[in-house]
Amino acid sequence: MTLDTPLHQLGLAEAARLIASGKITSEALVSACLARIAERETVVQAWSSIDPDYALAQARGCDTGPSRGPLHGVPIGVKDVLDTYDMPTEMGSPIYKGLRPAWDASCVALARAAGAVILGKTVTCEFAGMAPGATTNPHDASRTPGGSSSGSGAAVADFMVPLAFGTQTGGSVLRPAAFCGVMGYKPTFGTFNRAGVKFAAESLDTIGLIARDLEDLALMRAVLTNSEAVAPAMPQAQLRIGVCQTYLWHKAEPGARAALERAASAAREAGAHVEDFVLPPPFSELTATREILNNVERARSLAYEWTHHRSAISPALTRSIELGLATTDQQYRAALRVAEWCRLELDTLFGAFDVLLTPSANGEAPEGIAYAGDPSFQGLWTLLHVPTISLPAGRGPNRMPVGVQMIAPRYGDHKLLDAAHWLIARAGVHGLME
Amino acid sequence: MTLDTPLHQLGLAEAARLIASGKITSEALVSACLARIAERETVVQAWSSIDPDYALAQARGCDTGPSRGPLHGVPIGVKDVLDTYDMPTEMGSPIYKGLRPAWDASCVALARAAGAVILGKTVTCEFAGMAPGATTNPHDASRTPGGSSSGSGAAVADFMVPLAFGTQTGGSVLRPAAFCGVMGYKPTFGTFNRAGVKFAAESLDTIGLIARDLEDLALMRAVLTNSEAVAPAMPQAQLRIGVCQTYLWHKAEPGARAALERAASAAREAGAHVEDFVLPPPFSELTATREILNNVERARSLAYEWTHHRSAISPALTRSIELGLATTDQQYRAALRVAEWCRLELDTLFGAFDVLLTPSANGEAPEGIAYAGDPSFQGLWTLLHVPTISLPAGRGPNRMPVGVQMIAPRYGDHKLLDAAHWLIARAGVHGLME
Repeated sequence: MTLDTPLHQLGLAEAARLIASGKITSEALVSACLARIAERETVVQAWSSIDPDYALAQARGCDTGPSRGPLHGVPIGVKDVLDTYDMPTEMGSPIYKGLRPAWDASCVALARAAGAVILGKTVTCEFAGMAPGATTNPHDASRTPGGSSSGSGAAVADFMVPLAFGTQTGGSVLRPAAFCGVMGYKPTFGTFNRAGVKFAAESLDTIGLIARDLEDLALMRAVLTNSEAVAPAMPQAQLRIGVCQTYLWHKAEPGARAALERAASAAREAGAHVEDFVLPPPFSELTATREILNNVERARSLAYEWTHHRSAISPALTRSIELGLATTDQQYRAALRVAEWCRLELDTLFGAFDVLLTPSANGEAPEGIAYAGDPSFQGLWTLLHVPTISLPAGRGPNRMPVGVQMIAPRYGDHKLLDAAHWLIARAGVHGLME
Repeated sequence: MTLDTPLHQLGLAEAARLIASGKITSEALVSACLARIAERETVVQAWSSIDPDYALAQARGCDTGPSRGPLHGVPIGVKDVLDTYDMPTEMGSPIYKGLRPAWDASCVALARAAGAVILGKTVTCEFAGMAPGATTNPHDASRTPGGSSSGSGAAVADFMVPLAFGTQTGGSVLRPAAFCGVMGYKPTFGTFNRAGVKFAAESLDTIGLIARDLEDLALMRAVLTNSEAVAPAMPQAQLRIGVCQTYLWHKAEPGARAALERAASAAREAGAHVEDFVLPPPFSELTATREILNNVERARSLAYEWTHHRSAISPALTRSIELGLATTDQQYRAALRVAEWCRLELDTLFGAFDVLLTPSANGEAPEGIAYAGDPSFQGLWTLLHVPTISLPAGRGPNRMPVGVQMIAPRYGDHKLLDAAHWLIARAGVHGLME
């Protein structure tokens, strides 16, 4: 991108460089993002709370003070299940209308300490679950943006902000990223500290990132892990890619199948070793296993809300909690053990592969905004605690975005970002245009 | 115990039975506990906040309403790092003086829904760390009660309340239990849902229980895991006990060594198969490994406080955060992997044993209250995510309590409680009297 790029379209790292070199101001950048939001928000409805004057005040503070770090002056969005000390945190629930936490969530505090401007809070499904807000898909307002990080996906895709935080318990980062045609990254479980997150299901909840550029994911990852930012680099050796249809392939729609096949072919043509990767039979239990953990842990984590505010809980979440309460502790513990067994088994199965390629989601964003889509293709990997990224990989039959999902072994996040870089730069899997 | 037992000395399960059968009222029980607190609190200082009128109002609500569950009308204490919607939650830090969360922590909500009266909040070291409050050891006010669940340990030992919640990141449940001569139970990592806990170090933080009776631990465990309460039972087969001195044996003082030897001898005499259990060399790294995780995760979870309230953070915690910030992410991830490897290895090593016996702590509670004691003997097992219990096992050379610690494999919590029951009932390891 160049200085001719409209400011609101700049990526996080690019904007940070331009601010650091004095070519643009934080105020100009934030103003451009706010103007974009003013223009589009009545349709997209990505933000649960945003205060333009306060955002601009933060930006002017950056412009007049010394650099605070690698994100100095750049705006980000924060999913509204993450605590912010200076903005409401309502979690998509009427129970917490207007709530002001006493602190910032760890990731928010670390981003702020590195200089980020917190532009506002993005719409979340109720408690990061299945009951969506009013956000629409920027590519077609009659369709869902996905969820539960609905606002984060839509705001980034609509160029309102270069990066936004999400959380993923099933498919809540990667699905909105895929449906909105941007990148979603869920790191290895536990990578980004969860202090200040309202838990959905603590053995699954993973903080992730939605952005338009790979470099931006790497930069924010470095900030949140107290590391030097290293831009993704080309892998040194031939990339060994396993194409994994998974036991869910019957759910993959033509657009998702075609995207995976295109990406696999392009990778093979560009020189990767590409072969099929089959998950052995025990893995086909994992959708049910994840549902057990999700329901039981939601029932426990929302025990206060269930006791005191039951009538304000949506039918979808009520059903999940009731299923959780009907599950025995023996069943829950058995599910934990199945998950752990499969995690270790996947470590072994990965042996001959650097990364896997699999569908990001069933297909294009479904019509309507009452249903945020099926989490199966993302939730499997959430349960397995592996790092995963969704890359935009063309459009489906309805001209809506479809993604491909790339997965690395646990703790292989750097390899994952490098492999994604290769797939974009060498194999040409890079967006929505074809 | 009988009806002649002073009410404030009743256990949780016993009191619940007496209330359920109409033999005592919740108001009488709570009044007795409050009277004990009034008598002793100026010395013990176990409570960070307590409102007698409000506690009595809860009790009268129980007495005049239908039974809400298996804890109907019985009072419990709650460590002040656990959120309560109706009481301050100050986390032992001046930063959060007077803070009122919007919700109850999961464990508090579940206990309340089962009928418990929340008597008050118990003193915690700052953010469940190393900087103690004013609590003293009920056996000798010149000595520490241990920490970080200092108030929970002291309140239960001093018969102010039958059971209190604690959290353990290093040794914060078992050490105060051992120092105060009561039982401390840390379940398998993840057993009690952590929603509403202020994180210290999320890969370690485990909610645990302090009580005087084994049955009470089993009852609260059932409530928090949506299970039927099953009192600990005698193991069917001969118990296979490994006596584990650990690589920390040089830290074990004569009182702790003698207690372990007494318990092992008594178990052998009572019919158990008892032999030495040696942790292989890689385990001797685990104290350092735990410190890496603890420091890095504290630095991340307290990022907001570090940025906004640094001058209100204690020197001990400042040091921990600074060490965390000086640790690279590579070192942190390596530590996570060492911990995981050792957890799996311990699963295997456990093969020939049902439980391990090991010291609860270095020895008796040290003099003074500025230092809450060494967490090494507890922290090793916290890192390993195994369930563990400290049982009172006599007194040391200074006539202060010493404990023995019993450990089962991950998810073997029922076996652990059964083995503890056997050790108390058959081998006579049952308290401070000899």
